[in-house]
Amino acid sequence: MLRIDDLGLKELKIKQDTNLFSFGMDAVLLSDFVHCKKNARVLDIGTGNAILPLLLYGKNKSKCITGVELQKVSSDLALENIRLNKLEKYIDIINMDIKCFKSKELFDVVVSNPPYMQNASGATSSLKEVAIARTEICCNLGDIFKAARALLKMNASMFIVHRPNRLVDIFYEARSYGLEPKKIRFVKPYIHEAANLVLIEFRRGGGSFLTIDKDIIVYKSAGIYTDEIYKIYGMKR
Amino acid sequence: MLRIDDLGLKELKIKQDTNLFSFGMDAVLLSDFVHCKKNARVLDIGTGNAILPLLLYGKNKSKCITGVELQKVSSDLALENIRLNKLEKYIDIINMDIKCFKSKELFDVVVSNPPYMQNASGATSSLKEVAIARTEICCNLGDIFKAARALLKMNASMFIVHRPNRLVDIFYEARSYGLEPKKIRFVKPYIHEAANLVLIEFRRGGGSFLTIDKDIIVYKSAGIYTDEIYKIYGMKR
Repeated sequence: MLRIDDLGLKELKIKQDTNLFSFGMDAVLLSDFVHCKKNARVLDIGTGNAILPLLLYGKNKSKCITGVELQKVSSDLALENIRLNKLEKYIDIINMDIKCFKSKELFDVVVSNPPYMQNASGATSSLKEVAIARTEICCNLGDIFKAARALLKMNASMFIVHRPNRLVDIFYEARSYGLEPKKIRFVKPYIHEAANLVLIEFRRGGGSFLTIDKDIIVYKSAGIYTDEIYKIYGMKR
Repeated sequence: MLRIDDLGLKELKIKQDTNLFSFGMDAVLLSDFVHCKKNARVLDIGTGNAILPLLLYGKNKSKCITGVELQKVSSDLALENIRLNKLEKYIDIINMDIKCFKSKELFDVVVSNPPYMQNASGATSSLKEVAIARTEICCNLGDIFKAARALLKMNASMFIVHRPNRLVDIFYEARSYGLEPKKIRFVKPYIHEAANLVLIEFRRGGGSFLTIDKDIIVYKSAGIYTDEIYKIYGMKR
């Protein structure tokens, strides 16, 4: 089902195919976690329906964003979303495998909300498009860090959101590719629960020292977000 | 100053030199985090004044512990502590560099409360013995994991306590030496603060999947421990 949602930012709208991959809180939290200069050139690896470029534009984080997406059906939707919001001047969508993507000019920031699951681990969707977005079938952590290293300026930052149970893979692969994890922030559904998401900032060529930020807690009580989540969503309580 | 403290476990006592390295909450939390069968052969790398062997014995976790300590002044104190508690039958202390330590029989469990700081990073004590215990002057993470891999049975576990800002170094080095991080637990002074300690379990030859346990919170309010800490210390509230 195709559905148009209001992003609650600068009247931005997003068209999503609920049979494919709809954006969730992870994309919103990642867009909030990213920090960059306003004129920064940002690359989004695996942009899907362009939710991250839209959020980064909407939150005034960047006005020069390139989203690369492997799947034609998703990149077509991304292009539709850019046109729907009249952002052709600010956001480019490229339908290409990130392993083949080249750029003359290096980027100031790389962001990614990659597939969370390792290939053949856990349940994967029977729908090919959804399986590719969720599982490392076409693109794994190594591919993403390899691309990021090649496309990111020295001492520039990369930001991702992922599952905490992949943290060893993430740290190991990132350092192997010269992208040093510098800051992490865990996201917990409730304050007394274990984290189910993690936000990570890497620096190309960074030295070894990891900062752990305070956790993000999603719910205060059943159905009631914490003040921080309301603030990140730009919602009045 | 030499001081004898009661460990609050089976009437065990520990003699500490307050000019050297006194045990802290990290050793107590690590001893609680360790799980092993009662007849497990346990190796403690860098045993200091033998606090971990005493706690593991006191908590009924093992009756067959070997503590290896590089520094003569600390291993002498460790030996005194074993005699003070009449545990010569259960705990061996060896004054040796872990890089030289060999054992005919492999161990079921390795534990370590290693130096937290990288060489030449941050403040180091002017007292050589304290500097060696706190800073990776004589023994770094790689040395510890290399020794653990050589001394630990396949599929057996290692447990350490460390600082969260070393997490990338720890994960990277551990995996490089075939010790896969399997479980972590962060320790926070207060529930709304960032973690300042982390407990980690590794498995020799383990597969990639990290479990994040619920955090340990130390204080409920200023000077008042949480119920969990009172329980770990075996104290009545």
